Amino acid sequence: MIEELTEIANGVKMHVNEFLENKFLDARETVKIGADGTPTSRIDLVAEDQVFEIVKKKDLPLNILSEEYGFLDRNYDYTLVLDPIDGSFNAEMNIPFYSISMSVGKDDLMNLKYALVMNLVSGKKYWAEKGKGAYFEERKLKANSEMSENLNVISLGRNIPDSVCKIIKDSRRIRSLGSASMEMAMVAEGTANAFLYYFSKKEVLRVIDIAASTLIVREAGGEVYDMKDLKPLNMKYDLTLRKNVLASGNPEYAEKIWRLLK
Amino acid sequence: MIEELTEIANGVKMHVNEFLENKFLDARETVKIGADGTPTSRIDLVAEDQVFEIVKKKDLPLNILSEEYGFLDRNYDYTLVLDPIDGSFNAEMNIPFYSISMSVGKDDLMNLKYALVMNLVSGKKYWAEKGKGAYFEERKLKANSEMSENLNVISLGRNIPDSVCKIIKDSRRIRSLGSASMEMAMVAEGTANAFLYYFSKKEVLRVIDIAASTLIVREAGGEVYDMKDLKPLNMKYDLTLRKNVLASGNPEYAEKIWRLLK
Repeated sequence: MIEELTEIANGVKMHVNEFLENKFLDARETVKIGADGTPTSRIDLVAEDQVFEIVKKKDLPLNILSEEYGFLDRNYDYTLVLDPIDGSFNAEMNIPFYSISMSVGKDDLMNLKYALVMNLVSGKKYWAEKGKGAYFEERKLKANSEMSENLNVISLGRNIPDSVCKIIKDSRRIRSLGSASMEMAMVAEGTANAFLYYFSKKEVLRVIDIAASTLIVREAGGEVYDMKDLKPLNMKYDLTLRKNVLASGNPEYAEKIWRLLK
Repeated sequence: MIEELTEIANGVKMHVNEFLENKFLDARETVKIGADGTPTSRIDLVAEDQVFEIVKKKDLPLNILSEEYGFLDRNYDYTLVLDPIDGSFNAEMNIPFYSISMSVGKDDLMNLKYALVMNLVSGKKYWAEKGKGAYFEERKLKANSEMSENLNVISLGRNIPDSVCKIIKDSRRIRSLGSASMEMAMVAEGTANAFLYYFSKKEVLRVIDIAASTLIVREAGGEVYDMKDLKPLNMKYDLTLRKNVLASGNPEYAEKIWRLLK
């Protein structure tokens, strides 16, 4: 299945980059509101269409849950949980950091079987298979289990609680890169000590944003937590659900951050 | 001269990426302390050696001021102000956002003639020639002169003043990407409303970090300010000098941010 997901991702990469080259300005236009209520820009549609086309052409045994379309029931047990472009804003603003996020599973985040996150600029991929580990290309990943604050990755902007600033000031380095799937994969890779997505007025992340990287982090020995109660994150395949999350390779460090934030 | 700088950047891109592919782990090793006191990692040395080699081979009429070597006086009027890798930490941590920053000028930031910042992952470049405008590849750039807080780019970590958190909470979106030259170029591109590098206990940025992007921002109609007094930034070609800076396409917005920070 990883081979098929890679083929899909390569197809999307080609189409998206061609589209961005040719129509850089048009890409910013918001086309319509997606199934989950988020404005969908043309670039997301280009990517999503490409995925649907390949899944149908190759007749892969998968339903699809995706940002714009919603749920496509093809009467299979397994579902492709898809964010066709994670980091659309980056793509539209010529910030070269955006990805496609895909995972295959049943029902919820505890039953994921395959995951693939491809950087659509470099074409390189993070991927995982349940029980068989997580990888960047051919290199096996291991989350960093040290109690360190060398690098934390945090989503920032309006509506962050003041307490997030404490985390920033405790961290040697901060990155805020605008593509949650690749940012969370940095925890799996062992380079980021924590990934934090925490907003005060609303929860933000949907299952399509984080399914793939959740499996990647867990297969690398890290954990993804629900910010509400610091329990391992679970979500049904439902676009209306949103969560604040925290990921880390070290449970004590996760708890320390969580207590500082509460 | 832009052609020669492009050739240098392409050479560095090839060598650096080959080095990272082959020796991913070795790259993190700190080799020695650079001329300015910063630990220089092997990846910086690989890049710097490559630049020196090309400048000498092509006998370009330039002195060189660079991170590791310091000042190489070749008895010319003009100096290549060089950061061989801006974002070494990113490169070493497999975060695909790092660049080479080069500018050619005399004496200080007010006398820059050419600038080139190449993304060493994508190979695409921001460049400018004094009096002739700033470009991303072939596309002419114009800084955003609107009074907007849609996207601000801020360097974050230990030693940010609390007031920086006010800016974060006023901004719709924040990016913190780890390569000052490309982050500042986003102001020239009109995508970022402001770029901020402001630490409380020490000033950080050196002339080699910001010379190229300063010309790029100014040629796109934006301004780069000294955080000390909100005057247009100037620096001699001296590695011992460090500054906190702010760049924006809108002077009122720059002043608003500056007042909030003080």
